[in-house]
Amino acid sequence: MFKAIVDAETLGDTLDSVSVLVEECKIHLEEDGLTIRAVDPANVGMVDLELESSAFESYEADGGLIGVDLSRLQDIAGMADKGQLVELELDEETRKLHIQIDGLEYTLALIDPDSIRQEPDIPDLDLSAEIVLEGSDIGRAVTAADMVSDHIALGVDPDAEFFYVDAEGDTDDVHFELDTADLIGLQAGDAHSLFSLDYLGDIQKAIPKDAEVTMELGEEFPVKLHFEIAEGQGRVTYMLAPRIQSD
Amino acid sequence: MFKAIVDAETLGDTLDSVSVLVEECKIHLEEDGLTIRAVDPANVGMVDLELESSAFESYEADGGLIGVDLSRLQDIAGMADKGQLVELELDEETRKLHIQIDGLEYTLALIDPDSIRQEPDIPDLDLSAEIVLEGSDIGRAVTAADMVSDHIALGVDPDAEFFYVDAEGDTDDVHFELDTADLIGLQAGDAHSLFSLDYLGDIQKAIPKDAEVTMELGEEFPVKLHFEIAEGQGRVTYMLAPRIQSD
Amino acid sequence: MFKAIVDAETLGDTLDSVSVLVEECKIHLEEDGLTIRAVDPANVGMVDLELESSAFESYEADGGLIGVDLSRLQDIAGMADKGQLVELELDEETRKLHIQIDGLEYTLALIDPDSIRQEPDIPDLDLSAEIVLEGSDIGRAVTAADMVSDHIALGVDPDAEFFYVDAEGDTDDVHFELDTADLIGLQAGDAHSLFSLDYLGDIQKAIPKDAEVTMELGEEFPVKLHFEIAEGQGRVTYMLAPRIQSD
Repeated sequence: MFKAIVDAETLGDTLDSVSVLVEECKIHLEEDGLTIRAVDPANVGMVDLELESSAFESYEADGGLIGVDLSRLQDIAGMADKGQLVELELDEETRKLHIQIDGLEYTLALIDPDSIRQEPDIPDLDLSAEIVLEGSDIGRAVTAADMVSDHIALGVDPDAEFFYVDAEGDTDDVHFELDTADLIGLQAGDAHSLFSLDYLGDIQKAIPKDAEVTMELGEEFPVKLHFEIAEGQGRVTYMLAPRIQSD
Repeated sequence: MFKAIVDAETLGDTLDSVSVLVEECKIHLEEDGLTIRAVDPANVGMVDLELESSAFESYEADGGLIGVDLSRLQDIAGMADKGQLVELELDEETRKLHIQIDGLEYTLALIDPDSIRQEPDIPDLDLSAEIVLEGSDIGRAVTAADMVSDHIALGVDPDAEFFYVDAEGDTDDVHFELDTADLIGLQAGDAHSLFSLDYLGDIQKAIPKDAEVTMELGEEFPVKLHFEIAEGQGRVTYMLAPRIQSD
Repeated sequence: MFKAIVDAETLGDTLDSVSVLVEECKIHLEEDGLTIRAVDPANVGMVDLELESSAFESYEADGGLIGVDLSRLQDIAGMADKGQLVELELDEETRKLHIQIDGLEYTLALIDPDSIRQEPDIPDLDLSAEIVLEGSDIGRAVTAADMVSDHIALGVDPDAEFFYVDAEGDTDDVHFELDTADLIGLQAGDAHSLFSLDYLGDIQKAIPKDAEVTMELGEEFPVKLHFEIAEGQGRVTYMLAPRIQSD
């Protein structure tokens, strides 16, 4: 059983957060909210999302699992005007999701969850540095790095206490520094890892510019990015595997 | 003889209404205004337009007939800023149309009307249902239906008194209902017909979102759509042939 | 030695003025400001630009010469938000330009000036007519002419005292007239020359719509266009060679 009403923007943000990595996903319809975990085909980027029942206007579920085509569901959510509500109801028999937006009813065929890539285990890592910064700063770093290279180094200088971004191109370089005055928070530690700009660029698109993003970073380790959606009633975590340093 | 001054927006709306179906058309320059009738190459969609002389700042004509390339005339009208006037004058000898917009003069070669597809007779049909609705609702129905199918069913439930739209895809369906509270007017009657979304999508682009559209609908019959342009001093009628039901 | 701070918009306008004709250019870093002269590969369009030191927040230079890839520098300047300052500093040893925008540092490899096309001598011409007009009128003339032809005639009627633009297509013509009431200034004289719309269209993109443009025009001679940038603390001159009249 699944029956919920949610505003279009919250639904859209939820779907966008996952669709930057995968085209299809499994959604767990738990009693206290929905959760999604997914990994991209190359096993480089993972997402872990939860949206509490309190993020919905109304929410009823009893632990089901559905598989959805994300771009299709995004198109439907996109039919709603700003502020409009979206009603979702699962038909257990036909395995279709009924979606209603002010008189408009869309019947979406679901995907067999068994046919969707297995959900990843997102490891608990003990990363040495934690940086809290605005989403817009991640966007700025990615855009600048993208002008010269296809990978980006993220790091922390534990002595001087600043977070930095480095990108080295064949002829040009980009360096970006944010010190404790620019950051929301910094727990300094030795940290420096290299990442693919393709992935970080895609992930960055789903991070709201005004979001407070917590970044956990280590020494040639994956990076974790956490931020809230749905006014604090939802959480997204991305984990991105490092590239091997070329030097 | 033809000499007229019209504001750029009225001219643009007039041309847009016809250009969604054809690339060239004949324009009748009658004493009391201009009229255009045209049918698309496949004989599926027809348009009948009249723009009264009162829609113009000034208007003089004596029953001539000209043939025009619509996209060319649209480009010229597009040179005008919002609120600017467009002066049109026919040179009978050279068969060219002189178009002036604030110091800018464009001399447009006309097309021999005999070389343009014959104008259709738009039949007087006795259609069982009449729905009056906002242009934006037609847009919404077309966008939603287009997500799942390339045809769209329009119908009226005469007992429950509502207008509906249905589109059936291979896996997903769209259903859209507007009852008497959502509609501006409804004269219920048995009506259900299937149409090509290609055509209805094109036509819908020319219907202003805030227009009051009168739709006449029958049982496997063409649909007629009427709305006003030029603040009531012009009228557009579209007629779209039905597709044969597949079931 | 070169070290300067300039607002992003002034830097952007400067680069845009030159990049409509060439991809790379030499920049002279004079004590009293910077100058750029460049000619397109076909020797048809030339630009001569100077930006006084007073256009900068701070400026120090001693007569150096650098070669730059314009689109790369434009991308970097585009990273700045409206009103942000851009810091430029030349590293003489590495021949790299350090560009800083609020914590973001970009290291740009310069191009050997000797590898860039030689700078043109922009001839002092005695042109018979001078027209002063708004940048937006040049844009309007180019857009209209482009609808019918790939070249454009600019001329002055010395008796009737107006400036005109003519474009002749295979079937349609465009004529645009601005008299002394429409123009900011006119020094009439016999003048009529034909130009490539490709070039004038590109040049026009770099002319601000609200700029006061002085056009010097002759009889089958090049046209010169002058306007100010950086609130009067910079000047741009374009010179465009005429095409031979076909009639």
